[in-house]
Amino acid sequence: MTGKAFQDYYPDQVSHCYGCGRLNEHGLQIKSYWDGEESVCTFHPKPYHMAVPGFVYGGLIASIIDCHCTGTAAAATYRAEGRAMDTEPPLRFLTGSLHVDYLRPTPLGVPLEVRANVKEIKGRKVVVAATLSAEGQVCARGEVVAIQVPEHLILNTNEHRRRCLIPNRVGPRQPVDSAGETVRICVK
Amino acid sequence: MTGKAFQDYYPDQVSHCYGCGRLNEHGLQIKSYWDGEESVCTFHPKPYHMAVPGFVYGGLIASIIDCHCTGTAAAATYRAEGRAMDTEPPLRFLTGSLHVDYLRPTPLGVPLEVRANVKEIKGRKVVVAATLSAEGQVCARGEVVAIQVPEHLILNTNEHRRRCLIPNRVGPRQPVDSAGETVRICVK
Repeated sequence: MTGKAFQDYYPDQVSHCYGCGRLNEHGLQIKSYWDGEESVCTFHPKPYHMAVPGFVYGGLIASIIDCHCTGTAAAATYRAEGRAMDTEPPLRFLTGSLHVDYLRPTPLGVPLEVRANVKEIKGRKVVVAATLSAEGQVCARGEVVAIQVPEHLILNTNEHRRRCLIPNRVGPRQPVDSAGETVRICVK
Repeated sequence: MTGKAFQDYYPDQVSHCYGCGRLNEHGLQIKSYWDGEESVCTFHPKPYHMAVPGFVYGGLIASIIDCHCTGTAAAATYRAEGRAMDTEPPLRFLTGSLHVDYLRPTPLGVPLEVRANVKEIKGRKVVVAATLSAEGQVCARGEVVAIQVPEHLILNTNEHRRRCLIPNRVGPRQPVDSAGETVRICVK
């Protein structure tokens, strides 16, 4: 897939997620795209993302499914509203619940493909089902209940974000971004 | 907690897990202990383990719950068999299914405590329920169905493991350990 992924449309201030934030340099930075009515994400695990030698770690599988499904929830909601992902207001979803069934060991050393379908959009809640495959074989199935983040928690200008940055030492309960800077989430 | 954790008893060849393997230098290396009938794990997320600034990434929460529960499944099975974790044959569990409900945002910058209880031991299957708390408040609940790895897949001597190491370039489908070495899982 080429072009902008779902995650490339997330506003900067909600793009630090370890799983899918393009601004989290330590993270997985997964990328999701439409493929007709399904969404698809291809991910290449690192050699150390293992459960036992030769097989992918289940927590990584859960993480990829999680972020791909919340991304799909956002993209599907834009579609349902009949607007493009670069239009205002921005949409961003977090995970309400996550379920993964591990059907067979997932081989390490090949790309993984996650495909997702929206089962239900009901208000701020979107239910997304996913499969994770390796070499054409489904290795895991997942389901995510994604919850839309209230709009007022998404800061939609970099100027606003700069005003919220506190270049200070990180202490308990103080939010930090991926660079270790202290950040305050602004609530209007 | 001090002393040996559940994961410190895993045989070397099944100690490369990204979540709990003591030999995976890139991994989370979680540690689980008994606290009476419950098991407990304390984990300190890194600043970059975030969902949005200030809050812990859900995939990390799923990963910690996953590995803590499979470790608890192993420890509980040793207990049920009336033997210590350093006795033969070694027990190791993988994840059959994982469910996590995210009850509230989990703050970043404080230690997380996961507590687990065994709900059922039935043959090779162990069902474990867990809570994840921050500052005394439960932020997530999880349940793992853990499946015992067949004994013949666990190599229980380092000598055996050395014989299975192929110091070769990593290719597709070739198992690798956390150092990037190619490893073959031996089946008797």
